[in-house]
Amino acid sequence: MTTITITAFETSPDRGRGLARDMRVRWALEELGLPYAVRLLSFEALKQPAHRTLNPFGQIPSFEQDGIALFESGAIVLHLARTHPGLLPADPAAQARATAWLFAALSTVEPPIVERSMAALFESAKPWHEERLAMLDGRVRVRLDELSAHLGQREALDGGEWLDGAFSAGDLMMVTVLRRLESSGILADYPGLAAYIARAQARPAYARAFADQLAVFERSQAANS
Amino acid sequence: MTTITITAFETSPDRGRGLARDMRVRWALEELGLPYAVRLLSFEALKQPAHRTLNPFGQIPSFEQDGIALFESGAIVLHLARTHPGLLPADPAAQARATAWLFAALSTVEPPIVERSMAALFESAKPWHEERLAMLDGRVRVRLDELSAHLGQREALDGGEWLDGAFSAGDLMMVTVLRRLESSGILADYPGLAAYIARAQARPAYARAFADQLAVFERSQAANS
Repeated sequence: MTTITITAFETSPDRGRGLARDMRVRWALEELGLPYAVRLLSFEALKQPAHRTLNPFGQIPSFEQDGIALFESGAIVLHLARTHPGLLPADPAAQARATAWLFAALSTVEPPIVERSMAALFESAKPWHEERLAMLDGRVRVRLDELSAHLGQREALDGGEWLDGAFSAGDLMMVTVLRRLESSGILADYPGLAAYIARAQARPAYARAFADQLAVFERSQAANS
Repeated sequence: MTTITITAFETSPDRGRGLARDMRVRWALEELGLPYAVRLLSFEALKQPAHRTLNPFGQIPSFEQDGIALFESGAIVLHLARTHPGLLPADPAAQARATAWLFAALSTVEPPIVERSMAALFESAKPWHEERLAMLDGRVRVRLDELSAHLGQREALDGGEWLDGAFSAGDLMMVTVLRRLESSGILADYPGLAAYIARAQARPAYARAFADQLAVFERSQAANS
């Protein structure tokens, strides 16, 4: 087995808050106890042919090991979880269910959250910003209400702390998606979800991954100062 | 093995154009030659506890067979493709790559396309609609440019007609995502993508799945007339 190499931003636009999508892959690698190397890319390098060979959409993260070259954080986390024990249950039905939660995080919960972030970033000066933000908040809250109800039922049923059984790749992905709401203030209305995120952040693997991505950002600032 | 049962809209909001997400699962089932039953749900039934037990977000499609209960079209298509031959290459590296394309369809290409559709549906009367639509078109076109360039390179390299090697679950998902742009007129600027969609639609399994979902809509109209 050759070393795993992933890519990440040389200078992350989130300023080291762990919201860039390499955080998901770093966290999974730490949960599974796998060492890895990181190749840092500038915004310019992301759009060059060399990186587009790995990811035609010119995004981070990518993953390389033993002739396997992948892109998309969801695909990379799922690949790691399927090929190493620790992030998916062994039982096929439970494994398929945890995988469904990973897709739910990416396809159902993340899109309205990202749309809200983009509106906050790119449309805040528009006269119609407040009107749109109210619509977007509504869409985000529909999903948070549903997720919150599900987690509440899990807890009431058997004290379950995660989406479906033990902590899985589905929880890992869902927590990274929900964290994109941190600066919105919306999570204050969802104490159950805030507690769920906090439980995940208390995991040593999360802390190691977070520290590593923050160190990259801090080095980039020191180099530019 | 018990029968596969999926869920779909009793009356699809797309009026039988095959844009609802059960089409993805129907198409995969037809590609794999698997018989299945469909349970039709009204909009009210989708939000009831009985369906939320299957999908906490109250959406179609869901999937049930032999004690495996799944939601999210991506998870269902991937589960089917992994457990039956025909939609994923056998080689692990190629299989992981096809899976990355499935995620790229859902996480990178679909969100701006869905956002554009939602703006067209819900914001067309707003005075700022044109301004927003131009922004959204720009975001969609970035992804179409990249996808188009990738398919062009594949074709130039070895005459490849699909995203990566043979037709896979990644192509199936990408085509269903791109079809959501049909009414926008944007695809007229991308003849390579239009040809890619047409190649996929020429597959007999696509035609069978399309006819079956259309028949459901037509029966719902006859029943209500």
